[in-house]
Formats: sequence, C-alpha cells, structure tokens
Amino acid sequence: MGLLDNIHSPEDVRALPPEALDELCQEIREYLISSLSRHGGHLASNLGSVELTVALHRVYDTSRDRLVFDVGHQCYTHKLLTGRKDFSTLREMGGLAGFPRPYESVHDAFIAGHASNSVSVALGMARARTALGADYDVAALIGDGALNGGMAFEGLSDAGRSGEPLVIILNDNGMSINEGVGGLASMLSRMRTRVEYIRFKKWYRTTIIPRIPVISSLLSGMKRWLKERIIPENIFDDFGYEYIGPIDGHNIRKVENAIRWAKEYRAPVLVHVITKKGKGYPPAEKAPEAFHGVGAFDAKSGIPRYTGEDFSSVFGRALTEIAGQDKTVVAITAAMKEGTGLIGFQEAYPDRFFDVGIAEEHAAAMAAGMASQGLKPVFAVYSTFLQRGYDMLIHDVALMGLHVVFGVDRAGIVGKDGETHQGLFDVAYLATVPGMKIYAPASFRELRSMLKKALAEDTGPVAVRYPRGGEGAFKGDTSDRPAAVVRPGSGVTIAAYGVELNEVLAAAKLLARQNVSAEVVKLNVLSPLDADTVLASVKKTGALVVPEEACREGSVGERLLAAAAESGLPLRYGKRLDLADGILEHGSPDALRRKKGLDAGGIADAVLEMEHGKDTA
Amino acid sequence: MGLLDNIHSPEDVRALPPEALDELCQEIREYLISSLSRHGGHLASNLGSVELTVALHRVYDTSRDRLVFDVGHQCYTHKLLTGRKDFSTLREMGGLAGFPRPYESVHDAFIAGHASNSVSVALGMARARTALGADYDVAALIGDGALNGGMAFEGLSDAGRSGEPLVIILNDNGMSINEGVGGLASMLSRMRTRVEYIRFKKWYRTTIIPRIPVISSLLSGMKRWLKERIIPENIFDDFGYEYIGPIDGHNIRKVENAIRWAKEYRAPVLVHVITKKGKGYPPAEKAPEAFHGVGAFDAKSGIPRYTGEDFSSVFGRALTEIAGQDKTVVAITAAMKEGTGLIGFQEAYPDRFFDVGIAEEHAAAMAAGMASQGLKPVFAVYSTFLQRGYDMLIHDVALMGLHVVFGVDRAGIVGKDGETHQGLFDVAYLATVPGMKIYAPASFRELRSMLKKALAEDTGPVAVRYPRGGEGAFKGDTSDRPAAVVRPGSGVTIAAYGVELNEVLAAAKLLARQNVSAEVVKLNVLSPLDADTVLASVKKTGALVVPEEACREGSVGERLLAAAAESGLPLRYGKRLDLADGILEHGSPDALRRKKGLDAGGIADAVLEMEHGKDTA
Repeated sequence: MGLLDNIHSPEDVRALPPEALDELCQEIREYLISSLSRHGGHLASNLGSVELTVALHRVYDTSRDRLVFDVGHQCYTHKLLTGRKDFSTLREMGGLAGFPRPYESVHDAFIAGHASNSVSVALGMARARTALGADYDVAALIGDGALNGGMAFEGLSDAGRSGEPLVIILNDNGMSINEGVGGLASMLSRMRTRVEYIRFKKWYRTTIIPRIPVISSLLSGMKRWLKERIIPENIFDDFGYEYIGPIDGHNIRKVENAIRWAKEYRAPVLVHVITKKGKGYPPAEKAPEAFHGVGAFDAKSGIPRYTGEDFSSVFGRALTEIAGQDKTVVAITAAMKEGTGLIGFQEAYPDRFFDVGIAEEHAAAMAAGMASQGLKPVFAVYSTFLQRGYDMLIHDVALMGLHVVFGVDRAGIVGKDGETHQGLFDVAYLATVPGMKIYAPASFRELRSMLKKALAEDTGPVAVRYPRGGEGAFKGDTSDRPAAVVRPGSGVTIAAYGVELNEVLAAAKLLARQNVSAEVVKLNVLSPLDADTVLASVKKTGALVVPEEACREGSVGERLLAAAAESGLPLRYGKRLDLADGILEHGSPDALRRKKGLDAGGIADAVLEMEHGKDTA
Repeated sequence: MGLLDNIHSPEDVRALPPEALDELCQEIREYLISSLSRHGGHLASNLGSVELTVALHRVYDTSRDRLVFDVGHQCYTHKLLTGRKDFSTLREMGGLAGFPRPYESVHDAFIAGHASNSVSVALGMARARTALGADYDVAALIGDGALNGGMAFEGLSDAGRSGEPLVIILNDNGMSINEGVGGLASMLSRMRTRVEYIRFKKWYRTTIIPRIPVISSLLSGMKRWLKERIIPENIFDDFGYEYIGPIDGHNIRKVENAIRWAKEYRAPVLVHVITKKGKGYPPAEKAPEAFHGVGAFDAKSGIPRYTGEDFSSVFGRALTEIAGQDKTVVAITAAMKEGTGLIGFQEAYPDRFFDVGIAEEHAAAMAAGMASQGLKPVFAVYSTFLQRGYDMLIHDVALMGLHVVFGVDRAGIVGKDGETHQGLFDVAYLATVPGMKIYAPASFRELRSMLKKALAEDTGPVAVRYPRGGEGAFKGDTSDRPAAVVRPGSGVTIAAYGVELNEVLAAAKLLARQNVSAEVVKLNVLSPLDADTVLASVKKTGALVVPEEACREGSVGERLLAAAAESGLPLRYGKRLDLADGILEHGSPDALRRKKGLDAGGIADAVLEMEHGKDTA
C-alpha cells in the first residue's frame, strides 16, 4: 500500500506521475476487497469505477468544483482519495456513511442515494454559478441504470439545451444491458459499437473516398447536410451535448484525457465511459449483482459469511407460490429483483415477471393498466423508492380503485444505508392514497398470510409493508384480525406494528418489573385503522403510547390520538414515540433504535416518565 | 349540423363515406367553438385534434379496444362521437367531465388528467391482454408536451422492447417546440424536417444513384450496414418502434391510413402526427396558450368575457417585485407559466426564469441544486402536480435543509377539472417533508406577505399554498402570527385556513343566530403547526371543529385533535369536516363545498348537530 498510504487529499493524486496511476488503482482495489470482505458494503460498483474516480480527481478539484454523484454507492474510491481512509466503521453509527454526505466532507457536493437526480442537481448548480458569476466547474456522474429513470431524461433534456458548461459522465457498466431492460439499454448497446463505426469511417475516408474523387465532395457535402439536419449520431448529440465516447473506463489515461477535454469545452458535454462492474476481483466480475451490496465475505473465494432468511426472501417465495395457483398474478420490480427476493419468481414464471429498470413511476402506472384489464400485479419496491410513485398511486391506481398490490420492502428503519434509504414516510404517504389498505406483518408467517389476503380477498389498492432483515421474537400470526391484543394489561396501552412489536413486548416485561401493567395492541392493518380495538383498550387503561419507526406527521400515533380525542375518551396521558422529522442517519437498526428511544429500554423509560409525570401532576 | 346530428356512436362515424369526413370535422369545430364560447373549457387542443380523433374512431372500436388518453383535456371530440353531445353542463357538477372518465362511458378506457402516463398504462393493458389471451387492441394518444415528462420516457423505453402490439400516437402540436424547452423539442423539430429528408432520399435514389452505377451497390450496402448497426433514424427506431411520420394531422385520410397500418403491424409502432393547436379558429391559432383552458368568450372575436384577479396573478406579480430587490431569486415552472401567473416574471427577468416543460421531478431537484449554491429558487406548481415531486422534496430538498420555496397553486378544491386535479393531498404530504414550513394565505395581502417572509426570513424548504381563483370576504393580513383568533367566541373553537376561512366566518354568523358562540382561529402556518393557540381557545370553549378542503389522513384536523389528546385537554366534542379519501368529482367549488358540507351552512349544521348530540348525551 505504498502509494495509497501517501494520499491524504486529491492534491496528492494530482501530484502523482501518470505512470504511477495504475499502481494506485491496484492498491485501491486491494484495499476495497480486503476492507469490504470484513465489514460489507457496495463492492462491485466501486471496483468498476476506480480508474474513473481517480481520473475525475486528476481533472477536478472537488474542494471547489462540484462533483455530483448519482445513487452514490460508487463513492468509496472518492472517499479514500479525499482523506476518508478508515473504512473499519463504514456504514456504522458514527462512522463513515456509505453514500456521499456533505456533512461529512466538503468534497461531497450533494447528497446521493436515490437514482437519476444527478443531472438535474448539477444543472441547478451550473445555473446558480452562471447567475451568481461564480467560476467553479460542475460534473455529474451517472450510471446506465440510473439513466433509465425518467428524471434523468428530464434533466438531460433541459441541461443539453441550457448551454451551461457542464460535464455528464455516463458510467456505463452495462448492467441495464445485461438485463436487457428497455430501449435505453438497446441504444447504449448500439452506441458501444460506435468504435466499429469510427474505424469504418476512417477506412472509408482514407481508402474509398480518394479513389473516387469525382463524388468525394458531393458525398462529403451530403454527409454534412444529413448530419446537421437529419441524423444526429445519437440522442445525446440531438439533445445538445457534445458526445465523447465510448471510452475504455479502465484505461486511466484515456479517461483522464476525455474528462479534461470535456471540462475545457465550456458547453454541455457527455462523456460515455465503459466500465466493468466488479473489475479486478474475479468472483465479483462473474456475479456482479451478488456483489452489489454485500455483507462480510471470504476475500479469497468471495463466499458470503452469512446468508439468513429475511422478509424479502419470504415475500418472494410466498408470491411465487401464490402465482402457481393464480395465473393472473404478475410481479413487477424496478431494477431490484435481488433485493426484493424475486429471483425465484422470475425463474418460475419468466413470462409473468417484469423488470422495468429504475422506473418506479412507470412501474406503478403500468401496474394500474394491468389491473384495469384483469391482472393482479404485485409491485415489489423499497419504501423509500416508492416515494417516486406517490402521484401514480393516487392518480393511476387509486382514483379508479384498481387492485394493485404493493410489496413495500425496507419499511421502517433500514439501517446502514442511512438517511436516503430509511423507510420512514410510507406509513404517512400511503395512508393518504384513497382507499389504500395497508398491512403491517410482524413475522414471516404474517407476511405470508397477509400477502395471500391482499391478493385473494382484497380489492382496490393494497400495500403490504415489511422491514429489511429478519423477524424477531414474535413469530405468531394474528392476521385474521385488523388489530389484536397480544399481551393483556391494565395500566397503559401500547400500540405497535411490524417488528417494532418485539421491542414493545420486551418493554412490557421491563415495565412489569416496575409494577406497570402494559396491554400491547398489535396493529395488523394500518389503514383503515382499527381504532376501536385500541380505544377499547385505552378505555380500560386510560393511557396510550405508540412507538413507531416512522416520521411524526401522518403517523399511526397521530391518527390514534386524534381518534381518541374525537371519541371523547379522556386520557391520563397520550404519547407518540417516533422518528420526528424522519431524518435518520446510518447505523445498525438496533443502534438507531437505542439512540432514538425505540428499543425496549427506551419505550419502558418513556412510559415510566409519563406515569411519574402524571403521578406528580 | 347535418352530419354530427346523426352521429350517435362511433359506428356511425365508421359508416360515413371518406368524402364526408372533412365536413364532419368542420361541424365538430363549429360545435366546439360555439359551445365553449358559452361555457368555457379546453378549446385549442381540441380544435387541433379533431381529424386525429375522427381517424382514431374510424380505425379502433373503443367499445372493445382500449384508447388511452394522456392528460385528456383533448377528449372533447371523442366525447361528441361516443354519444356524449350535451356540452351545456360540461365540467359542471353532474354534467360531463372535462376529462376521460371510465365511470362516464365504456369508451373511456382509463382516467386521464396528469401527463405522461399513457404509454405506461397502455403497456400494462397490452401485457394483460397477452397474459390473459384477450384480443383487443391498445393505443395511447400522447402530446409532445407530455412526452417531455420522464415517465413517458420510462414507458416508451419499456414498451418499445416489449414486442407487444401497441400503437403510440404522438400528437405533436409543437407546443414544446414553440417554447423551445428541452432537447426533446429540438429532437422533434428535427424529425419534422424528415419530410425534406424523405424527398431528398427519393431524389438521390432516382436521380443520382442510377447515374453512378458502379458505386450504387456499394453505397446501398453501406447504407444498410450503417442503418442497421449504427445510426437509427431517430430515438423511436432505436427504442424498438416502427416509426411512421411525420404525418399531416389535418389530412384525415393520411392519418386514418397511418393508424390503420400501425394497428395491423402487430408490434410497437409510433405514429408521429403533426397538428396545429387551435386549428380552424383564427383567435386560437394565433394565441393557442390563451385558448388552452378558457372561460366563456365572444365566439366572433375570441375576447374573454371576464378576467379577474386571482391568487396566481397576485403571486406572479409579488414574486416579480421581490425579484427586483433580490437578485438571487429565480422562478421555475413546469410548463405552467400562464397558469401560475409567471408571464410577467419571464418578461422582466428572462435570465432568471426557467420553464423546464412537464418535468416536476427535474424541477424540484434542479431547484435543490440551485439552492445548494446560493440561489433562492421558487418553483410555482399546482398542488396536484407537485405530487410528482414528492420524493425529490424529501430526498433532494429536505435532507439537506435547502431553502427552496414552492408556490403551491390550486391548493384545495379546484373545481371543474375534477378528481385528477383537486389539490386535496398537499396538506398531508407536504407536512411529512422534513423541516418543510407551510404557509396558507387566505387573502391576496397574506399571499404577498407570506411569500416575502418565505424568501427573506425563512430558511430550509418552504411551501406557500394558495387556492385557484380569487379571494373571498376576508381581505385582511394576519401573517405576523402563525395562528390568529379572528373572531372571538366562547362556545366552540373552529380552526380554518385558506379561503375556507370565509365559509367558517359566515358559519360563525349563522351559529350566533342559534346562540352558539364560535371562536374562529385562523391558521397561517400549517407546519410547524401552532397547536398552542388553538388549544388555548379550546381550553376556553371545550370543543373543536376543523373544516378543511383536504383528505382526512394527515389533515390539520387530525394533527390538532392529536395535539389535544396529547395535551390531556378534555373535549366536549372534536370534529373533523374534510374530504374523506380525497376523491372529489368535477363541479364549481361552491357547489362542491355545499355538497360536502364545507360551506357556511354545512359547517353550522355540523356544529349544531354536535352541540345537540352532546346536549342529549
């Protein structure tokens, strides 16, 4: 690690002689593999973008220029080169974030996490620079997967015509191409063959044309006429970009030269760089998807150290089983078939499986179209990414009461991916969708039962929301009721849903030792909310506490307290324990729950405080 | 009206001899102009699509085939041809809707209102057809403006590669081109010149090639090689569509032939039709934007019968004035500069005005990028369309606490545009956005004051939400406080915001006659909510009623009642008066308020019922 040890800032990278760069890249790869094999993280995409990131830092000074990452999990090399080399606590609470984070470093120009926004953000920065007469440079780094998202298209369309000096670097690792999703993939694939085209042009110009001098000028004039007026070389030319590419993204000198040229061009430029996901680590090159986001693994073999059952895999298997009985069930994913556990479904029913790429809006509206004609579409999507489909949930699905089922994965505290990925808003935004029924299973068994009900018994829009990871102590199934008293008590009612129930049940035990008898009401359906069962309990206990992994506004606690007020029920006390404004940093879910008072101890403490507060009042 | 009188269903259209169609189109135009001059509606886009719609009904049988409109305000001819000829109550409560509405007719395959969803919906239908072995045809009709929306790109990308027989009809009236927004407009503009290109190709093939026989075969092989492998003719070819066009959209035989051919092709086809907005009515041809959505006008001159001041125009003037003092203020619109009152701003500060086309996601993220670099962007957007930007509000704007101001127009009951356009969700979804401050002016003066505060005093994300139309009896300015008692009383507290305040003040007068003394608390800031002022009033009156033009979940009433419960304040009664699930049909705002009990009488009745209910309880 001779070179990397001496890199403390991007200036050190720029000071290196060009011939040392391959060695630096090699060291970075070794560090990434060794470090991530111990702690986990996003491996394949970072291995693929080492040379590209080093080249970016050779050209741009990120302490003053603005480099906008898209999605951002490919920022590890960037972090290494900008003074953040301690990866031992990567993605842990208090440690380095797994995504760019302006709070962490001046070199992180903008937050990243969700896909397809970088061009829009970068254009905003470029326009601000021009309006305010500043002189920094702006670049956006976007992958071919993110380019499939509609917002990227909106941004590209506006930025190309803006005339703003702005460099878009397309990191094309062919993921969308391998998957064969969408016309965009096909377009990029065709553009890759441009190398061949350029070779042909050269041959044509040097060999053919001089031999037929009479038509040479006619042809060249014709070509210019055609090129200028009719046939742009590709959509990027057409959109107003100077297009450079495709460039071998692992040839660091070529990449550096291209980016340097693009920066100096003082107009919108798109640099098309071809990279290989997992580059330099054979297990990841062979199975890049498996090495997208990983836990700890054996560095030599690439074999993961642990694979357990989780809600996503249970969901995928349950859906596949249901689809075996009901031929109208189809599955939709927006580029997350591994994450949402749908690999098995795809294998069993390839004709009823639709991966639309990163395109949540399209996925939701397409599902509505399917449902309107008699299919039962299930869109499996992370809570935080379904925010993209909010308008389609209302406009396309709900206004017509269409029976679309949403498998809302990663609902609640997500953990290590941090604030851009936590699923803390779906409880509120899904409840506003007209007629949306929301199930909140707390165990694998409940997930299976509720998914079955959602498809076989319900009509209209339905969401089944479940957390990242595995189940806890509660393994029962109470799904036959919208709400159930799972622990009787007399002193206070605690209402909970999802895996937070485990903390509440543990808190009830702690409280019992303090002579507070807590009745625990488990909520299975969050909308329409069975307030009656909760209020019946409150009538007995006189107090209500609602701990939940959700933002405060629009929370279940808010709705239960409002129901209590409207019913005229007097309360000794009512208390919401939640995640306030919904901004929650990275860290393990347990650590985050503890910090926010949503673990058993925190809940028990809050109840005791209310009890004592009311006693002394 | 000889021909139109005898058209009772699309079968009658198909039975007409081709030579009668121009006459039919002429009659339809006359009917539209005469009818809309009396009642208002969407004129220009319907005048532009008469031939196209007639042609669609010649080819498709919409009683079994699925024709999906995009946006849908261009559906008037479709309604006329499908047995809905009484336009006298168009857009009025109980009358014909101004948009396609499956509840209204079997010929309306899907709801429409928001832009850019039609390709996704149609693809969902086509896939359902294939999966279920049905045999109807599917077509989507999308305008060039809607094509700019990212979701359309997502849908086109997926549909082109799907192989599904599916016809996308691009109604290109050049609106996005005239405005010069975006690369897409430029691309379409280039494609229009394809006519010239085709002419050139013909000349080249018939005149040049035969004269140079030796290279003819070489050139033709080369051309095929290039065409197949490198240079698609345009993005649609590339995305997997058979592209037909551009076609003169007012030549009905050509349009009919093209659509018929496309339908028979059994693959994804894109038919590019060029139309003229306002076609056949000189005032509308000259100023198509002014005749987009109109009130009553003089049919001869095209002069509108009434133009009053409304919240949108007040907003636009106030923003222009502020921008004169603060050079960092910029304005953004997503293809709604007329509707949001920004024409004057554009004229005064063209360099600080950004119309991004129909692209709410991009607009919000770009605003975040601008704010991160020191600009003060103001994104003026309708409440219902900002739903598209929900994820960007959280991810791009709020997580970094960026100071972006949202001018949320058409908030609350919107009226005649119906359920796809009502602004009934923003109160709930904006409140979930971390750190979002929400102002709710009730008068023009308050709008001016609050916009000024939002830009000069606040930091972080801010929304100023105001209704469609003009102010009511309340013309004061209480913006110096987050909440204000505007009418003192002792028997019940009624809290309200926005123009609904006028109904509440009138209700208080009605109640006074019944010896119920209502205290009216006006809420100026909805988030963070000043619950203390309301609760101080409730402490006095013992009862709380909250009438609001919003969906129930996440409403202000819910939050105030929860605050009351959490504070331990006993209530004689608490009552929410709202719009339940948020689905509200078309009709005048007054008629809708009356129907939903949100007019003065309805509110007074609800309070009296609670008073009597509690008396007898």
